[in-house]
Amino acid sequence: MVYPDDSLTLHTDLYQINMIYTYWQTGIDQQPVVFEAYFRNKPFNNGYVIFAGLEHTITYLKKIKFSASDLDYLRSLNLYTAAFLEYLAQWRFTATLRAPHEGEVMFDHEPLLQVEGPLVDAQLLETALLNIINFQTLIATKASRIVSAAKGEPLLEFGTRRAQELDAALWGTRAAYIGGFNATSNVRAGKLFNLPVSGTHAHALVQAYKNDYDAFTAYAKTHHNVVFLVDTFDTLKSGVPNAIKVAREFGDKINFQGVRIDSGDMVGLSQTIRQELDRAGFPNAKIYASNDLDEYAITNLKKQNAKIDVWGVGTKLITAFDQPALGAVYKMVSISGDNTIKLSDDDEKISTPGKKQIWRTDTGDMLTLFDEPGVGLPILQDIFVHGKQIYQIPTAQAVQRYAKDSLSAIPAPFKRIDSPEKYSVSLSKRLIEAKNTTIQHVKNMIKEF
Amino acid sequence: MVYPDDSLTLHTDLYQINMIYTYWQTGIDQQPVVFEAYFRNKPFNNGYVIFAGLEHTITYLKKIKFSASDLDYLRSLNLYTAAFLEYLAQWRFTATLRAPHEGEVMFDHEPLLQVEGPLVDAQLLETALLNIINFQTLIATKASRIVSAAKGEPLLEFGTRRAQELDAALWGTRAAYIGGFNATSNVRAGKLFNLPVSGTHAHALVQAYKNDYDAFTAYAKTHHNVVFLVDTFDTLKSGVPNAIKVAREFGDKINFQGVRIDSGDMVGLSQTIRQELDRAGFPNAKIYASNDLDEYAITNLKKQNAKIDVWGVGTKLITAFDQPALGAVYKMVSISGDNTIKLSDDDEKISTPGKKQIWRTDTGDMLTLFDEPGVGLPILQDIFVHGKQIYQIPTAQAVQRYAKDSLSAIPAPFKRIDSPEKYSVSLSKRLIEAKNTTIQHVKNMIKEF
Repeated sequence: MVYPDDSLTLHTDLYQINMIYTYWQTGIDQQPVVFEAYFRNKPFNNGYVIFAGLEHTITYLKKIKFSASDLDYLRSLNLYTAAFLEYLAQWRFTATLRAPHEGEVMFDHEPLLQVEGPLVDAQLLETALLNIINFQTLIATKASRIVSAAKGEPLLEFGTRRAQELDAALWGTRAAYIGGFNATSNVRAGKLFNLPVSGTHAHALVQAYKNDYDAFTAYAKTHHNVVFLVDTFDTLKSGVPNAIKVAREFGDKINFQGVRIDSGDMVGLSQTIRQELDRAGFPNAKIYASNDLDEYAITNLKKQNAKIDVWGVGTKLITAFDQPALGAVYKMVSISGDNTIKLSDDDEKISTPGKKQIWRTDTGDMLTLFDEPGVGLPILQDIFVHGKQIYQIPTAQAVQRYAKDSLSAIPAPFKRIDSPEKYSVSLSKRLIEAKNTTIQHVKNMIKEF
Repeated sequence: MVYPDDSLTLHTDLYQINMIYTYWQTGIDQQPVVFEAYFRNKPFNNGYVIFAGLEHTITYLKKIKFSASDLDYLRSLNLYTAAFLEYLAQWRFTATLRAPHEGEVMFDHEPLLQVEGPLVDAQLLETALLNIINFQTLIATKASRIVSAAKGEPLLEFGTRRAQELDAALWGTRAAYIGGFNATSNVRAGKLFNLPVSGTHAHALVQAYKNDYDAFTAYAKTHHNVVFLVDTFDTLKSGVPNAIKVAREFGDKINFQGVRIDSGDMVGLSQTIRQELDRAGFPNAKIYASNDLDEYAITNLKKQNAKIDVWGVGTKLITAFDQPALGAVYKMVSISGDNTIKLSDDDEKISTPGKKQIWRTDTGDMLTLFDEPGVGLPILQDIFVHGKQIYQIPTAQAVQRYAKDSLSAIPAPFKRIDSPEKYSVSLSKRLIEAKNTTIQHVKNMIKEF
């Protein structure tokens, strides 16, 4: 069904609505709480993540309220009273949201989002907030690793057709840009986020004109700054010689940029093509490559002395192929001023109670209680205060710059894509005490039961 | 930027627009072509895929045309003439789309989509069509494998928070339902696709009321058909005994359904909980489990005699964790009546030319030229004819049923989730001849160059 007033407010798990119903019925829905989102394990065995997802988080929160069709649907479930649906109809987002700047380098166990406000608000938002930041942070981080492998050479994001549905392509390519990619093939992302867009032609062009020569000629007549895709029929026997022929015939008129290969032995082909281009008098023409690339493939191709200048990266970036989910969770850390905790047999899974701040110094990060004085740079910023947006969304260019600067401040050993050193994230003495006290409190309660 | 008239028409790769510009400038944009989408390798080493994505494909195609802001953006790129932008403004989708029924069992090298019409139409749509069907087919197939492992026990889709952005959660859970899941936690998916929704409460509920007993009591007062989550503090010392206590106190009033565990040793815990529930007089209460489950984990838990009745599956389903992309491609197979091909050094990557039909028989599938008489059931159906939708979107329930029936018709050896037999997909004699002739034609052309 298509609903003209459809909203993203129901983009949540049913249990959130069920819990809110219980909170409301028992009169605790307005109790002040703090929830924090964090992950326990850095993805790809990387030494850090690049925080991303804040722009989408903000646009989601700005529009959140139950529409008539949302309420009609909830009514149809026969789980809730009419009075509760009326309460939801009146509900507005009034909480405070804190987060790092988008593009900030972050580490495991650090809050990526902190929601402070009425219990109802914090509970409703969990699912969508995690859905957004889990994915975008994952992709920005993957992109950052690929940027590291490419050692300054241009990177193009080409993954839309393999992305996990439309939003993943759109927001994923923005995240890739934040992580340091130079451009995207996705035109709508270019439009919405003012990203540089890139692309020339596909195999279909060569098929449409039946041969490389006619296809390249047609393309050259109609475009400037051309890159020819040379592997439709036979890279070395037809694609490359025809690309060179057309480049010579058109000369300055087309500003021949180079050729792209998308299959075959990338090392051998690129070396031969480099020789051919040089011999033909095109030493500045570049070789573009795009074929299941990621940080490992790029590193490997470079080691084998492949002559590739520009890297088009698709599937393995846009899906974070080797680890397609970041497992950030969202836990209540205080309610009505009392610290609260989720216990587990696995120590690592025990949450750290209390509303926190993160302080960044030259020797590592320290988590403190929010109001405790800290040393260094406080990382969590006000994004919404009592439901009002106070953080202005920067341009994607500014976020990319911010990420670059944030990463520059981290010493090299923590940034190696293979076996990085572990960056220090410690807890303040007061936070450790708070954690131990809360654990003891819960354990005593269980013992007394 | 937010554009009130934003459309999905620019959800495509820039090179598609660049190629269309060349086609238009050289006057071949209206040449009749056929493009087909297919994949080369079945995901997860599965024996088949469940085709999904048709509903979203249809809603995308129904709305596709360039909006004013789309054209303004393209103008800003300074790549195209004003006359071309006017041409795009006038462009309307007039092609014919054929596809299997949504939910159809399909195999590698079979067309999942066939677009027949003007070259401009077929070229523009490639990226979004692949983006949609690659993901949804992948998830429906993953779901089908998990259904097979669960051997008839109920399966709930719980993955929204780990999905790759919002669309992946929404359309992914619909695909999971098509693949045989029973319900989803995503409320908006429930609303838009009329899927059964499911969910009770999270750890936060227990934290909000400070202990299991008060939380379960509050929940029991406000809900019917309750399932208690028992692992917030201590599963066996607090969660389970308090669940039983509250279930006894409320009796028939709450229709106690069982308990859910989300961590720990699922085998040992579930066996102990089963004993406790039975001893307490709740032999019908069920044990729900949700903790990084997939077809392998479920099979393994069953082998070890875990006493789990209902399975909540998240991350590994909604991201297709072990293979997060289906690599379907979209190739031109004919232009102006001539067959066309993409060659490759790798035989497996050579496309099969010609507009095709797929025929399903008891002994396997046969691909033929479209107008060739075939034997068995023709799989490709008209969805749009000359731009007009003629296929009515069935309910998700009907698609799920269709998938179940389609799968029932496939013999068991091809459906094993571990090392299935290879289902036979053959080419008709005329199709083989057409392929050989086209290959020879291209090779002669290269030789003459």
